[in-house]
Amino acid sequence: MVKKFPLDVVGIGNAIVDVLVQIEDSFLEKNSLVKGSMSLIDEAQAELLYSFMSSGIESSGGSAANSLACLAQLGSKTRFIGRVKNDQLGHIFTHDICASGALFETPPALVGPSTARCLIFVTPDAQRTMCTYLGASVLISPENLDLSVIEQSKVLYLEGYLWDNASAKEAFLAASELSKSAGGKVALSLSDSFCVDRHRDSFLELLETKVDILFANESEIISLYNSSSLSNAIEKVKGVCEVSAITCGEKGSVIITEKEQLQINSYQLGPTIDTTGAGDLYAGGFLHGYTKGKDLQTCGKIGSICAGHIVTQLGSRSQSSLSDLVKESLV
Amino acid sequence: MVKKFPLDVVGIGNAIVDVLVQIEDSFLEKNSLVKGSMSLIDEAQAELLYSFMSSGIESSGGSAANSLACLAQLGSKTRFIGRVKNDQLGHIFTHDICASGALFETPPALVGPSTARCLIFVTPDAQRTMCTYLGASVLISPENLDLSVIEQSKVLYLEGYLWDNASAKEAFLAASELSKSAGGKVALSLSDSFCVDRHRDSFLELLETKVDILFANESEIISLYNSSSLSNAIEKVKGVCEVSAITCGEKGSVIITEKEQLQINSYQLGPTIDTTGAGDLYAGGFLHGYTKGKDLQTCGKIGSICAGHIVTQLGSRSQSSLSDLVKESLV
Repeated sequence: MVKKFPLDVVGIGNAIVDVLVQIEDSFLEKNSLVKGSMSLIDEAQAELLYSFMSSGIESSGGSAANSLACLAQLGSKTRFIGRVKNDQLGHIFTHDICASGALFETPPALVGPSTARCLIFVTPDAQRTMCTYLGASVLISPENLDLSVIEQSKVLYLEGYLWDNASAKEAFLAASELSKSAGGKVALSLSDSFCVDRHRDSFLELLETKVDILFANESEIISLYNSSSLSNAIEKVKGVCEVSAITCGEKGSVIITEKEQLQINSYQLGPTIDTTGAGDLYAGGFLHGYTKGKDLQTCGKIGSICAGHIVTQLGSRSQSSLSDLVKESLV
Repeated sequence: MVKKFPLDVVGIGNAIVDVLVQIEDSFLEKNSLVKGSMSLIDEAQAELLYSFMSSGIESSGGSAANSLACLAQLGSKTRFIGRVKNDQLGHIFTHDICASGALFETPPALVGPSTARCLIFVTPDAQRTMCTYLGASVLISPENLDLSVIEQSKVLYLEGYLWDNASAKEAFLAASELSKSAGGKVALSLSDSFCVDRHRDSFLELLETKVDILFANESEIISLYNSSSLSNAIEKVKGVCEVSAITCGEKGSVIITEKEQLQINSYQLGPTIDTTGAGDLYAGGFLHGYTKGKDLQTCGKIGSICAGHIVTQLGSRSQSSLSDLVKESLV
């Protein structure tokens, strides 16, 4: 008998509100920021950097949360696990993820650091450079995970950024074991090449032992294997997980299994203004297809359509229906 | 001897953070909202409406505050008077107006209602429909105005929305008298045709006695004079104030003095996606030219350029330099 899972995807990640601002490249140089990277900053650094920023816009974000919101908008049954504080930004985050249709019931922290914020600098080439103050989002530990929820989901989806925090990492491992023993699949997004650099060995071990579906971009997979080229890294990841999906920006993506390698084109759905969330929405779209039993080519196409849409707007949560868009674009 | 004013424009208005969401027209019908209008709602209504909204973005707003931020970005010396609460949205508002270069030193409220929010529904035709929860922003009264600041400014700029609150209205009148006796000019934006409808008689009296520079759009000026047409309303406003500037969307604007009537074209600087703040930025650009002693044609052009830019982005605070834009576009 095939097990029935009431949920398609449960995701664990940092619950973050993004503050986006469009800047010139010189701002990055002045503030010693590496374009395309994500740096962790403390509250004092966040305040200081914010004081240098011009007027921005705020939008709910967080890597896994973005993917979950995308999945929910496409009609998947999803649940997000993450921590906000009981403050205004926490309410905004909660509103937005619930409005997408995802379930989100992790109780907010009543004391301690405020809801996480990510300062995102968008350069004229549409690249984003992020500085994250993790705030309340790290208050995830095995004790406050709703374990029964993880057993009920086809896929457990985790963001690599969680690896930066010891208790979240423990929660991540506990959740992975639970998912696997319940017959679910574990998906991981590598998140950022610097994050990979910080945790290379444990990520490699994780891939071998626990991860069924891997999401990474070109620089993350190259960093993971210390490879000289993408094709080299692809050779190494082949067969390690059930499936790996490597995104390569406007060049599209590559899906790798033990037996095949598929090339997926990118979708240009308008002028690219901000690439924030592109990888997250690729993963969301892909997993939507995957949990619906679609072939890998179709999974990749859905991912590409969602990513192709999100880069045409500022912020990483779609302001229009992704479901209609996928229906129109998928041929 | 001509008096030296250390400030160009001091503005008094509601300090509001906007929550913008793109919706279909049917949402307005379902929630009995009149397209293009601004309705006042209480906190419970705001929560209810917010719960129906999909994921949005947050951006600092407020009518006079938008104009002041625009003026400051253009290089005018400005100061904003308005009230936020000492909460996260209050910090965001404060950051954004100060980042524009405007001075803002009104102390935040420590108790009472939270920072004001405006739920803004943007339809596919780029029109915006607003529901405002005034929260802490109404905590403006003659007692907490910094009167010395008003005497130091060439122009005192007021938003009509203040008229909806009794103590803010008092503050507004006290400030007007102070400005006039110090030799400054008083500028008023009518804000909204429904606001005009609520306060027609007192607005008419105000124009006759206190206002030197009037900003209104087509429907506001028609509503003010209960006129049958724009030309009829223009006839009536002629000579009432020193100068009236009437914006007519993509048709441009009309500037009216006792002796002349100038037609200013609109500037199309990209696809129009959200008209929120168009009138505010027209007023900001106009007043920048005015306080710099430019002729009225040039004042109107600067206003048109700023308005033409802001409608190409979501939200009413420019995310790029208005000063460069005006230099490039003004020929």
